[in-house]
Order: sequence, then structure tokens, then C-alpha cells
Amino acid sequence: MPNDFPFNPDDYRVRPGKGVKLADTPSRYGGTLDKDHAHTLLAFEHQRMNDLQERLYAEGKRSLLVVFQAMDAAGKDSTVRKVFAPLNAAGVQVMSFKAPTSQELAHDYLWRVHKRCPSRGHISVFNRSHYEEVLIVRVKGFQPKAVWKRRYEHINCFEQLLADEGTAIVKFYLHISKGYQKERLQRRLDRPDKHWKFNPDDLTERARWDDYMHAFEDVFEKCSPKHAPWYVVPAERRWFRDLLVARVVADTLATMDPQLPEPTFDPATITID
Amino acid sequence: MPNDFPFNPDDYRVRPGKGVKLADTPSRYGGTLDKDHAHTLLAFEHQRMNDLQERLYAEGKRSLLVVFQAMDAAGKDSTVRKVFAPLNAAGVQVMSFKAPTSQELAHDYLWRVHKRCPSRGHISVFNRSHYEEVLIVRVKGFQPKAVWKRRYEHINCFEQLLADEGTAIVKFYLHISKGYQKERLQRRLDRPDKHWKFNPDDLTERARWDDYMHAFEDVFEKCSPKHAPWYVVPAERRWFRDLLVARVVADTLATMDPQLPEPTFDPATITID
Repeated sequence: MPNDFPFNPDDYRVRPGKGVKLADTPSRYGGTLDKDHAHTLLAFEHQRMNDLQERLYAEGKRSLLVVFQAMDAAGKDSTVRKVFAPLNAAGVQVMSFKAPTSQELAHDYLWRVHKRCPSRGHISVFNRSHYEEVLIVRVKGFQPKAVWKRRYEHINCFEQLLADEGTAIVKFYLHISKGYQKERLQRRLDRPDKHWKFNPDDLTERARWDDYMHAFEDVFEKCSPKHAPWYVVPAERRWFRDLLVARVVADTLATMDPQLPEPTFDPATITID
Repeated sequence: MPNDFPFNPDDYRVRPGKGVKLADTPSRYGGTLDKDHAHTLLAFEHQRMNDLQERLYAEGKRSLLVVFQAMDAAGKDSTVRKVFAPLNAAGVQVMSFKAPTSQELAHDYLWRVHKRCPSRGHISVFNRSHYEEVLIVRVKGFQPKAVWKRRYEHINCFEQLLADEGTAIVKFYLHISKGYQKERLQRRLDRPDKHWKFNPDDLTERARWDDYMHAFEDVFEKCSPKHAPWYVVPAERRWFRDLLVARVVADTLATMDPQLPEPTFDPATITID
């Protein structure tokens, strides 16, 4: 691992119980790292991730849950693709949480989330997640305050269960400014091959930008335990965004330190005809 | 409802935070009610359950979870059959939790339980449940103490989530003595048509009777919140056992007070040719 890694990923981690003022937090990386160097470093992090993911799979005892949340057009899909594409798809499942189905609505809101949590040896990547229950549900008033307010505690309990039972958890908020979102949405309008990604409803969400920022700030303050930290990722320079996320995922796997299982046979005694 | 119901079901409910000494708790009903009268009363409770279950189903907003735990041969299967058989099976699902499958073992221990929780309008009856994780898992040492000890808190959190999101919960422990279990197991040996219910492994569980009693006592002390009470049912007189369980289930549904939905049409204005 290069000793001279150009930034400290931990600077982007939300401390347990500590809030984050998003308005005061840069959404664009402003350091000295350049794009070419970032690409070189990303390739290195991909190698680490690949090696560690294979060990996690071989060990078959623990799992990793990676959560992405962000405003529309912040780059969730693209980050997932860029960071996880090089991994063996047999051990990595990307789960997108859209509007709940009627079957899902017929259960508590964590039912569909729990079902899709990673099995031992696997990585699940959540593109949106249970946090929508205290984001869109709150901002759009889908449930009264009395209902969404207690969900922070449910979510903390749920993540505690997962962590206690062998799932490491890391959560990323892809931070962009309202101005940057405008650019990205406009691009979807301007390019016919991106029209499928544009949804006129995104504009009503955009109109509630400040409400969303407050809702995110509450999430960071209430749901950042040590075992399930949030990272606020400056996401407007995509090469920085991808590198930071990849680095944190690789570091999380490295901290888990998955072990290849001891062979149940002595390879020296086995002859293959 | 008869005003002169011959016992108070609430006498069998475990109070939040209060323990129960099973050795001091009768496993055989000793009151003045007789079997014939109990059958009459059970028929009445069945009518209440039927009516209330149909309303729960029609309302389609909330659900009921009924948990049964007991030592082997205490009569879990028979209680489930006797109490729930008269209900419309379209709205009642009985779930038996056996040894976990390999897919289930690949997830946290509540994963398979959460999956089978009732959907809105439905009743789920758990024959054994997540409580096995602090009963057999503890008594047989399938997990170290550090692991099973924190599961009481997980379970309380999980039941809180269900309760907050619209599931009423009621839990029954079918209480029998070690001597009564001997009789029932012997009957399984003596009757060829009951051999399929006998498992020689039941005898190793029986040998740990006292450990199980302590494990159950800890469950009652730690996991009896107001919204998910345990009832300790004297289970050696089956007609009393069935009546008490049916009465508590009917009362639980009555307290939920499910409402038929308002019609979205005016029946008076509709003519059917």
C-alpha cells in the first residue's frame, strides 16, 4: 500500500453522535490530487478490494453491507458501477430500493431490507436503502412525524443486530450542491440517450432541497454508530468520489481481515491420478 | 360475552420486567371450571375470534403475531390446531421453526423470522420462534454466552419495530411439569401412530430440564414488554389450556378493534341488472 496516500479517508467520516452541517461541507474536492494520479490509486484500491472480497467469500462467515444515499443525479448508479464493477459478481449483489411493491407495503418497512441483507461471504450494495424511511417519507409527509421519528431507533437497532451477527456496515452520502444537481439534470434533458434517467418528479424533490438537507443532517447525527459509520463524500469530482469510496470499502474489508479457511485435508498426502 | 367468565386471563400474564418462578407456578389448572363448561366457552371464544379475524382481514392495516414456546410434548401442535383451526385459513399462517436451513444459517438469526412475519390483515402463528435463539442455543451452547446474551436486546428491538409498525404480539409458554412430559413422551412410544412424533433427541433435551427452566425464566424477565406479553399457560389440562389461549387471542384482537373499511361507493345508488 502506498504510504503517501494523498488524503485521510477518516476526515470524511461522521463521528458518533456528532452532526454535520452540509452547507459548510465542501461538495467538491479541492485538494492537490489530480485525476490521473487518482486513477492510478483507484486501480490499486480495486486490487485490494478484489483480494479481500475473495477472502471474505472463501471464509464464508461474515458479510459487508454498503449503503448509498444521495439526492437525485448525485451519481449513485455511476459510483456503484465504478467502484464495484471489477469485483467478482458471484459475491457482490447490488440492490436498488425503488418505491415499495404492494407485497412490501404489506409488511413493516424493514422487512424488504432485511430480506436483501448479504449472506455470509457476500457483499450487498444498497442503492438507496432503509434511510429513505426517514428521508423521502419525512420530507414528503408520507407518514406523520410520530411514525418516522421512532424509525431512527429502529434503524439503529437493526444495524446493531446485523453488526453483532457478523455484517460490517459502511454508509456513503454522495454530497453535491443544488447548482451541481441542476447541471446534471440539465444534461439528462439535453442528451436523448439520458432521457430514460430523467423523471419530472425529480424537480419536485429538488424544490424541497433544504428539507432534504435537514433530513440528511438528522440521519448523520442520529445514525452514525462506530460499527455503521456514514461518510460524507464530496461527489462533484467523480474521480475523487470513486477513489474515496473504494478506499473506505477496501479499508473496511481490511479491518475485517477475512481468513482463508484451514484446509480439511493435507495437500501433501493427496495424489491426483 | 358472558359476564361470568370463570377466570381472569390476566392472572397468567407476565408483568414487564417481572420474573416468574416456574417451579412455583402451577402447570395444572386447579380451579372450579369443568371440561364441559370449558368447551362451551371455547366455542364462544372461537366465534369472537372468527368475527374479529374477518374484520382484521377486511381492514388490511394491521396484523397479529402469536408465538408458542414450550418443552417437547407440551402440546404446541395440538394447541395451534385446537385454537386456530376454526379460523379462515386464508388469513392465518402457521409457521413452524425447525433447525435452520443452510440458507437461513447464512444470515443473521432474525432473518428467517422477519421474512415470515404476518402481512397486514393476517395472523401468523409461530410454532417455536426466535426465542429458540436464547433457549436451545443457550442451553446446548451452540453459541458462546457473549453471543446469546445480546440477543434479548435484539429481540426486544425487533418486537418493538413490529409493534410500532402495526403488528400486535402475544406469546404463550405452555407450562408442564417434568413428570407430565414423561407421560406424554411415553404415550408417543406406546402408540405406533404417534411414533413419528417421537425423537430420541428429545431425551437429551429432557435431561437438561432445569437449564431450560432457567432459560425460560430469563426470557420472561427480559422480554415481556407491555406490547408483547408472555402468558404462562398451565398446560396439563388441555381444555383449560385451549380456552385460556383462545380467550387471550380473542381479547388481543378485540383490543386492536379492527374496523371494516368505509365503502368507496354508495350502495343505494348502485343497481345490479
